[in-house]
Amino acid sequence: MANLSFFIGICGGTGSGKTFLAGSLVRALGKDKAVCLSQDAYYRDLSHISADERGKINFDHPDALDTGLMVAHLKALGRGETIRMPVYDFNTHTRVGDQKVVIPRRFIFIEGILILSVEAVAACLDYTLFLDVPPDVRFIRRLKRDMAERGRTAEAVADQYLDQVRPMHERFVKPRRQSADFVIPGTYDIRDVLDRILAAAS
Amino acid sequence: MANLSFFIGICGGTGSGKTFLAGSLVRALGKDKAVCLSQDAYYRDLSHISADERGKINFDHPDALDTGLMVAHLKALGRGETIRMPVYDFNTHTRVGDQKVVIPRRFIFIEGILILSVEAVAACLDYTLFLDVPPDVRFIRRLKRDMAERGRTAEAVADQYLDQVRPMHERFVKPRRQSADFVIPGTYDIRDVLDRILAAAS
Repeated sequence: MANLSFFIGICGGTGSGKTFLAGSLVRALGKDKAVCLSQDAYYRDLSHISADERGKINFDHPDALDTGLMVAHLKALGRGETIRMPVYDFNTHTRVGDQKVVIPRRFIFIEGILILSVEAVAACLDYTLFLDVPPDVRFIRRLKRDMAERGRTAEAVADQYLDQVRPMHERFVKPRRQSADFVIPGTYDIRDVLDRILAAAS
Repeated sequence: MANLSFFIGICGGTGSGKTFLAGSLVRALGKDKAVCLSQDAYYRDLSHISADERGKINFDHPDALDTGLMVAHLKALGRGETIRMPVYDFNTHTRVGDQKVVIPRRFIFIEGILILSVEAVAACLDYTLFLDVPPDVRFIRRLKRDMAERGRTAEAVADQYLDQVRPMHERFVKPRRQSADFVIPGTYDIRDVLDRILAAAS
């Protein structure tokens, strides 16, 4: 049976503006027609391992994701079922008690750096967007965000970026650019993106 | 009359490792055979304008350079004459009293972001190298250096980079990559670079 919803993946490196684009598209389409899931909600719950061990996990590698649950939720939504999306706490690397109820809509967006790299997730998508923003601009956005929202030092953000984020981006994220249906530059007209999605869905 | 020296330009964006490469090459060739000039020594002396006005100068634009003096010095060195390279104080944007005596050597390196963009300077060069390092890696090096050596905040470094450094890089530095004789990646074997210079000079 065909999906009742049209699934759109929004991919791109850290700081490429995936969340902003997804939010803009949901607003433009209306909350009765569109909803967005975040890859970030589907990191594995690490409550069974020590805090020390959790610090060693590479969250830019596909293995950090609970792919099984993500695919199960996408398929359930495709059948018209409501799902309960986990809420992930990045400080403790565990799922908190709360869950977010997601009611299927005509347009379902899924945004994340690895959604096109995990084959089982990519196979659930009808249309894919890749935000292509220069790496220095992306790093600066991440730097400002992590310093402001997570209280991290510039040095800590830079070192983690060079040690983990950048190598995983080169390996898993950047190569997916060429497989996306639509590559979006850093500056775009939201109307243009919307038109393409509507054309693809019709 | 042909130059007595072989002039080698080392170009590349901020944080690409120009100074490090120049230093490595001078050490490899020996100080009796090689010397390096820095574009940074040839910024215009701004002692005649107010400190407030100096703050508005874009030091990533070719107009900030005293091209006339730079070319005169390169030509003098080519004739076998000793020159007195200015010493520039980046805090006051003026030349300090001291000068650095530069005796012509067989190999004269000139390193700077704009040396290939200023036609009169580029015309003095016999061989040109362009260090091609990804912009995020270059920005992080600049960030760490400016925070450590100039006591600047991460936000100030990032804002200046986005406002001035990056647009000027796109306009003046990056397009020169294709005109360089040898494009060097971020990771290279100094022996390989040296071999190419020696082959070009013979």
